[in-house]
Amino acid sequence: MDDLIFQAIKKRRSIREFTDQAVSLDDLKLIVEAGIWAPSGKNNQPWRFVLITDDGVREEIGKLTLYSHILAGCRALIAVYIDSEAMYDPVKDYMSVGAAIQNMLLTTESIGMGAVWLGQILKNKKQVSAVLGVEERYNLMAVLAIGYPVHRKQKSHRKDLSDFIIKKFGG
Amino acid sequence: MDDLIFQAIKKRRSIREFTDQAVSLDDLKLIVEAGIWAPSGKNNQPWRFVLITDDGVREEIGKLTLYSHILAGCRALIAVYIDSEAMYDPVKDYMSVGAAIQNMLLTTESIGMGAVWLGQILKNKKQVSAVLGVEERYNLMAVLAIGYPVHRKQKSHRKDLSDFIIKKFGG
Repeated sequence: MDDLIFQAIKKRRSIREFTDQAVSLDDLKLIVEAGIWAPSGKNNQPWRFVLITDDGVREEIGKLTLYSHILAGCRALIAVYIDSEAMYDPVKDYMSVGAAIQNMLLTTESIGMGAVWLGQILKNKKQVSAVLGVEERYNLMAVLAIGYPVHRKQKSHRKDLSDFIIKKFGG
Repeated sequence: MDDLIFQAIKKRRSIREFTDQAVSLDDLKLIVEAGIWAPSGKNNQPWRFVLITDDGVREEIGKLTLYSHILAGCRALIAVYIDSEAMYDPVKDYMSVGAAIQNMLLTTESIGMGAVWLGQILKNKKQVSAVLGVEERYNLMAVLAIGYPVHRKQKSHRKDLSDFIIKKFGG
């Protein structure tokens, strides 16, 4: 199977070490544009974003996670939010946000950058929103740390495909 | 921006009309293989799948949604589940499942097929699991209807990119 999309999906890795090469707000906008083309239930597009290339803001956010070394080393952040006023079904809306994030991760790699999806920071989501000045109607879902990868030798592991297939009907 | 991944993401559409061309379990396995390469928190890989190319099972499932005409017209289904015993944080796990589904939708298009992500059927998720003989530890998250598209002229709409950006810090 030499399909480019399939290969890109399988080759994507979480990137945690970055070079000094800068990332611009325009780069982040392109990544977000990929995100918004995810599907959502009733096409409600519940995702929202804060784009951060400012070093000082990144440093403040870095104090709110156990992975501050990753935030210190990356060049940009995208804070991914969900708009409570746009939601219609939490489980479906969370899945849509996940689909948007996946679009963003794939696009980040395809334009030569790398990213890691940070979740532990949600423990301090209220403090993150306070630093960013984001209103309570928005709920933090993830932070993506972005930059140019030092290397792409990261390994990752998945269980066997058969372990995920509960049942099959047909041939 | 002529990046192939970015273009594929923007061109993907929900496909609801399908030709008679058959879809095999091997096709579905390939699509699922793309799904499992999504990232998940603690790499817990909480997604599970039921693969369906059998017409009779598809017909039974079709009775459990308002969109039975789509299930009647498609050639295959993938029921996407989450394993409650693999979960560690519901919101993060739901997002991971959404990321896996997005990988699957992108791969479906890239191999010449089409799919639509069905959510309304979750209203009858217990009955779906009863038809499929799936245990209670697995919770239905979505059903994907799959086949070869009659055409690819579907239009879709997103709000302006700027509507999704709450704040920007930097240049």
